[in-house]
Amino acid sequence: MQRIDLAEKFSLFTDRWQPRIVAELNGQHVKIARIQGEFIWHDHPDEDEMFFVVKGAFRMELRDRSVELSQGDMFVVPRGVEHRPVADEECWIMMIEPKGTVNTGAAGGERTVEAEWV
Amino acid sequence: MQRIDLAEKFSLFTDRWQPRIVAELNGQHVKIARIQGEFIWHDHPDEDEMFFVVKGAFRMELRDRSVELSQGDMFVVPRGVEHRPVADEECWIMMIEPKGTVNTGAAGGERTVEAEWV
Repeated sequence: MQRIDLAEKFSLFTDRWQPRIVAELNGQHVKIARIQGEFIWHDHPDEDEMFFVVKGAFRMELRDRSVELSQGDMFVVPRGVEHRPVADEECWIMMIEPKGTVNTGAAGGERTVEAEWV
Repeated sequence: MQRIDLAEKFSLFTDRWQPRIVAELNGQHVKIARIQGEFIWHDHPDEDEMFFVVKGAFRMELRDRSVELSQGDMFVVPRGVEHRPVADEECWIMMIEPKGTVNTGAAGGERTVEAEWV
């Protein structure tokens, strides 16, 4: 039970698309990640996923449209909805999703990574 | 499924200690509130509560210590832990907690309010 300084947490790593866990509540993990470039199309069959832009901007691509998100914006991707985050420049995001949620969801593949605490 | 601009959401109300719901995921509500002054001591017997400072600063008082939180800081109050938020100047916070969580928890009383969507 201590203060979690997000900027300090981001300073502890530089790799991208590698979510780190910073907090846990009610079966959810709060994760942070640096992202740049395109991720893969995927969905999470049983998990809603919240994105919050801590710094910078990115685009959440959905199958029927794209949503531009910048610092201070939030977006919830409901379970089962295909999405692909794309960032032209490095963006810092915070995510909230159930513990055990896999970054690539049902798609899997080589970009799958396990989130670790930071 | 749309962009949630927190600054725009905060611009829609001015009252304090009146949480507004801005998003829902996995049985949790994401709420925002303007706070200033002292709240009451309370705990939530069955709900962990996450606080994130969107703007300004506040102090989370616990029975054995206080934790100073400023913009970009996060803090999780586990279920059953007594706490009291205090803000010397107006502070904007985001909270995540299970749907139906009451702002005054087990303490109840006149400062109990129902959160509405904004």
